[in-house]
Amino acid sequence: MDLKAKIRVIEDFPKPGISFKDITTLLEDAEAFQYAIKQMAEFCRQRSVDMIVGVESRGFILGAPLAYELGLGFALIRKPGKLPGEILRVEYDLEYGSDALEIHKDAIQPGMNVVLVDDLLATGGTISAAAKLVEQVGANISGFAFLIELESLNGRQKLDGYDVLTLVKYRK
Amino acid sequence: MDLKAKIRVIEDFPKPGISFKDITTLLEDAEAFQYAIKQMAEFCRQRSVDMIVGVESRGFILGAPLAYELGLGFALIRKPGKLPGEILRVEYDLEYGSDALEIHKDAIQPGMNVVLVDDLLATGGTISAAAKLVEQVGANISGFAFLIELESLNGRQKLDGYDVLTLVKYRK
Repeated sequence: MDLKAKIRVIEDFPKPGISFKDITTLLEDAEAFQYAIKQMAEFCRQRSVDMIVGVESRGFILGAPLAYELGLGFALIRKPGKLPGEILRVEYDLEYGSDALEIHKDAIQPGMNVVLVDDLLATGGTISAAAKLVEQVGANISGFAFLIELESLNGRQKLDGYDVLTLVKYRK
Repeated sequence: MDLKAKIRVIEDFPKPGISFKDITTLLEDAEAFQYAIKQMAEFCRQRSVDMIVGVESRGFILGAPLAYELGLGFALIRKPGKLPGEILRVEYDLEYGSDALEIHKDAIQPGMNVVLVDDLLATGGTISAAAKLVEQVGANISGFAFLIELESLNGRQKLDGYDVLTLVKYRK
């Protein structure tokens, strides 16, 4: 299936010069949604995976059905202040300023193998921060799964040495 | 399965006096997660449902696997400024101040039957606003599915006349 044909590109969102990849049109298409999750599941089945980890919030939309399809638990990495229990936090740089991500300390059992899921691999800043959290709780990363990769932003370089699945590639 | 036993209650989050229902422990439990989604799917299969609609962001974690299980598309209702296409917006009152939700105008075809999903039915303010958006795009509401209901907050009154599924009930 041509998943790229199901993604809508909207120019100048959220700001001028950005060519936004709108995945809502793919999610609304039952067959495309099934196909995308099954491709990610196939990637996971080729590896040792005990749990799926999703990054807020579009990572939840893909990671939760992936965990469900695989019969695995689903752990959340969230923006600051959302998780009520004991957390670990990591800060990371953005183009302007910084942001942070959090995980519950007990979200993943130490030694578990996980796959991290998000919608988009761009510069790789967010997912690298998420990966740090996963490693800080003592879990192993079996791979990363993304719906979209923006190749010119070189996010794969930040994930060097890991297995990375991306289903749809754009230059930028 | 006793889903309530899988939910962790954390007192005084996000502020004193609130008894926060933490569903992350349920999501991390593969069997409990499967069971919850299958219960929601059973509710949907007893109705005419063409699409699942999830409310940001915990509604995504439940709604996306529900849509996947049913082989349906998944539409998003988001916080302001997140959706890149043409949107409809509804504002609603909070205890202090107000908030808003948005949906893409073309997210759901007019005449479709949908089930709205969120994690928690409390006062019903958020889900009522979400329901307005769904009706404004011309869709029909076949029902509402929540993981948790806080009964003393009377959210069901706001959904009077609709079919409402809640899997775990607390007094407050």
